[in-house]
Amino acid sequence: MSERGRVGILISGRGSNMVSLVEAMRSGAIDADPVVVLSNVPAAEGLRRAEELGVATEVVDHKKVKPRRAHDAAVVETLQRYRVDLVCLAGYMRLLTPVMVDAFRHRMLNIHPSLLPAFPGLDAQRQALEYGVKVAGCTVHFVDEECDHGPIILQASVPVHDDDTESSLSRRILEQEHRIYPQAVSRFFAGVRLEGRRTHAAP
Amino acid sequence: MSERGRVGILISGRGSNMVSLVEAMRSGAIDADPVVVLSNVPAAEGLRRAEELGVATEVVDHKKVKPRRAHDAAVVETLQRYRVDLVCLAGYMRLLTPVMVDAFRHRMLNIHPSLLPAFPGLDAQRQALEYGVKVAGCTVHFVDEECDHGPIILQASVPVHDDDTESSLSRRILEQEHRIYPQAVSRFFAGVRLEGRRTHAAP
Repeated sequence: MSERGRVGILISGRGSNMVSLVEAMRSGAIDADPVVVLSNVPAAEGLRRAEELGVATEVVDHKKVKPRRAHDAAVVETLQRYRVDLVCLAGYMRLLTPVMVDAFRHRMLNIHPSLLPAFPGLDAQRQALEYGVKVAGCTVHFVDEECDHGPIILQASVPVHDDDTESSLSRRILEQEHRIYPQAVSRFFAGVRLEGRRTHAAP
Repeated sequence: MSERGRVGILISGRGSNMVSLVEAMRSGAIDADPVVVLSNVPAAEGLRRAEELGVATEVVDHKKVKPRRAHDAAVVETLQRYRVDLVCLAGYMRLLTPVMVDAFRHRMLNIHPSLLPAFPGLDAQRQALEYGVKVAGCTVHFVDEECDHGPIILQASVPVHDDDTESSLSRRILEQEHRIYPQAVSRFFAGVRLEGRRTHAAP
């Protein structure tokens, strides 16, 4: 019997995707355990929620640990102390340095609220509305050096309605985020094969 | 009773989207008639199919009518002679000059086999596979000065499978093209309101 996977989750805010990941692991839908929730923001609401869920929490305050590389190094050190196999970014509002990217290459996932490669970066839902797309969605991908760019594990689409606001569209996308992020983590632990940028699930 | 809409369809190849548009108009699903199918390629297979469907055909050979602006002017003149209200590009493999774009601004549609703004230009399905997206699709949009760029009327998504080839993915997308292009034309004749880049269907 193989050991269960160990997952670290990084947040900066309320951590709704973190909660859906923790719940999926607890329910047995993912063959892994949430071993730490780490935030760069001491006041992040998600830290309280992680504590309520009984998950260890850590803070590496980006206002105290500088510069960026030193902050990333401290985050990496903390995650390694918890022996994480996989890092999940869940609303972690930091640009990553090579210190982080190299430490967890092909072992770090991010979720982004658009159908990448469309609308990378901030305010993806607003970008989508302003562009006038009729189909929006979300993407779980490996993290690489470029923002919102690494190989894609899963995507889900949602319709955009004529009367959508940023808020109504964001809600519809978030429902899909909560569905596919746990699926992507499950797929990761089942084994993902890379072929160029294409990812293939284990048979 | 208002007069029925008059649609001109431009093709360069086999014209499968042209056939789906003609059939939708003939079935009454669209309140408009196909008045001409025009090709820049005399040997285009779609011309034969248009003739079989009883639609008038025209050829403006881009190898004979040069330069590009003169060719576009001849196409515009032909379409105006048929008094078209709407021009539908259906695999029309030509870059358009302002002569065409200005003559039919907000009265010319194109269909593109990707979820724009992702993968504009040639070989969109191959671009999508190489990028490794898990959701692909197609887009019907107004034509403006930039390639595959104008305001979007409709989009449809399809899943990308792990074992997809360019050919299997193209087939899956084409099914959706044949579905949404007639819908978009129907929506055009029902009235489309523009708000920035966003399009709104008539209530």
